[in-house]
Amino acid sequence: MNRDQLFQEIVSKKSFLCVGLDTDLTKIPEHLLGEEDPIFAFNKEIVAATEDLCVAYKPNIAFYECYGTKGWESLRKTCEILPKNTLRIADAKRGDIGNTSKMYAQAFFDPAVSGLDFDAITIAPYMGEDSVTPFLEFENKWAIVLALTSNAGSKNFQNFANRGDKQLFEEVIDQVNTWGSTDNLMYVVGATRGEAFLNIRAHAPDHFLLVPGVGAQGGSLEDVCKYGMNAQCGLLVNSTRAIIYASSGRDFAEKAREEAIKVQKQMEAELIRKGIL
Amino acid sequence: MNRDQLFQEIVSKKSFLCVGLDTDLTKIPEHLLGEEDPIFAFNKEIVAATEDLCVAYKPNIAFYECYGTKGWESLRKTCEILPKNTLRIADAKRGDIGNTSKMYAQAFFDPAVSGLDFDAITIAPYMGEDSVTPFLEFENKWAIVLALTSNAGSKNFQNFANRGDKQLFEEVIDQVNTWGSTDNLMYVVGATRGEAFLNIRAHAPDHFLLVPGVGAQGGSLEDVCKYGMNAQCGLLVNSTRAIIYASSGRDFAEKAREEAIKVQKQMEAELIRKGIL
Repeated sequence: MNRDQLFQEIVSKKSFLCVGLDTDLTKIPEHLLGEEDPIFAFNKEIVAATEDLCVAYKPNIAFYECYGTKGWESLRKTCEILPKNTLRIADAKRGDIGNTSKMYAQAFFDPAVSGLDFDAITIAPYMGEDSVTPFLEFENKWAIVLALTSNAGSKNFQNFANRGDKQLFEEVIDQVNTWGSTDNLMYVVGATRGEAFLNIRAHAPDHFLLVPGVGAQGGSLEDVCKYGMNAQCGLLVNSTRAIIYASSGRDFAEKAREEAIKVQKQMEAELIRKGIL
Repeated sequence: MNRDQLFQEIVSKKSFLCVGLDTDLTKIPEHLLGEEDPIFAFNKEIVAATEDLCVAYKPNIAFYECYGTKGWESLRKTCEILPKNTLRIADAKRGDIGNTSKMYAQAFFDPAVSGLDFDAITIAPYMGEDSVTPFLEFENKWAIVLALTSNAGSKNFQNFANRGDKQLFEEVIDQVNTWGSTDNLMYVVGATRGEAFLNIRAHAPDHFLLVPGVGAQGGSLEDVCKYGMNAQCGLLVNSTRAIIYASSGRDFAEKAREEAIKVQKQMEAELIRKGIL
């Protein structure tokens, strides 16, 4: 999916919602545990209930990988049913030396090799340029590089500042910008402090940003939009728990839809406020 | 495997060699390609030919993951045959927010959940403390945190320096040191410049270091030992291509053994020079 297609989906669905698929056997409804593949069964119903309300899905790879071979099969089946008119993001936080990142890129982007056909993958930038560029060589695929995350540990290194008071996450954005373009790079920026987006936009005015941390983690959608939205929206705001675990009963998909509608309505208002709709 | 056991293996095998299992279908001998699982068949012969000469094996997870579910099954079978008297390292470069790193830790450390029983995993530190600590909660298991890597891109961010000329990789070691101990933390330090180990040892005098970059990547074993070895050896030096791809013929395992013996002999000389043997 390219940048224009993504923007068209945002306009047409009046939404920039990304639904996180952190599917956890200890949290999904009990009646699904008897299924042959409970994780896939859960995801299938969640996707069917939300696909007209969101523009992206983001399976968190750890939640599949922790079940080894079986979990990777659940991931493959999930990837297969994710609608092609959504941005299918592998939240994998990969990154290694060049020849190894090339293998990770095949793992998530080349279905002929791996069986997986994601559109985007999250990347940890610590190992630098050759760890990122192999993901940029696939047409209409995206590397979503960690910049400023929303977890407690984000402050340990991401705020490490140089002589000129430039922080590591700013240096990451400035350098990574030169390795690709707004057509194949996005950044992960946590939503815990909406005003931080002013600074992010000084470094990456036009890039799409993948934003976790709204909702359960305490970030405000209004602030994120106020400080982070650009003329092409430029935001994919992720919500996981509030949607996929809205109910632990047989009505889980229906309740997930109700929660997704609430978020979509807020997003529609923000898109109107910005003049995009 | 704990620290004492690792040191005992080093003394008993007169070696601190780690054999990398970056098993690549385009590089293994052609006669194996007809096997049901060529990657596993290759690894099995390599392990049998080298297990008395090395103290660690390090499958590079990308080389398995790129084949999706099937690759993860090759990884599971490989992990199963890695000798328990070697440190079994998953070279995975994982790292995510706390609850997700916990799932990655289960993926590699908890065979009851995932089928994989590695002793150690490589970790990218960008997301900070809560991304690392879940790996430290398993007894006799290790987090091997990226500090200074040997690839071209290492300079992009790892050398980013603060007001006091402290570089990011030094800050990583100093902070990560406080999250665990020399009994559950190691660091990845590339061997491209042996003298860099003087500085590393100023920050981590007692930790084990996992050292890639000797051999094919140009680092010198002698320099690494001169500047990096401590009283308990403190080094695991990785070699991959020079050993596992020593021959592409039917004699690949025999040739791998010959190469491993050469490295082991050099290591024995270094251990004697240091007074460890």
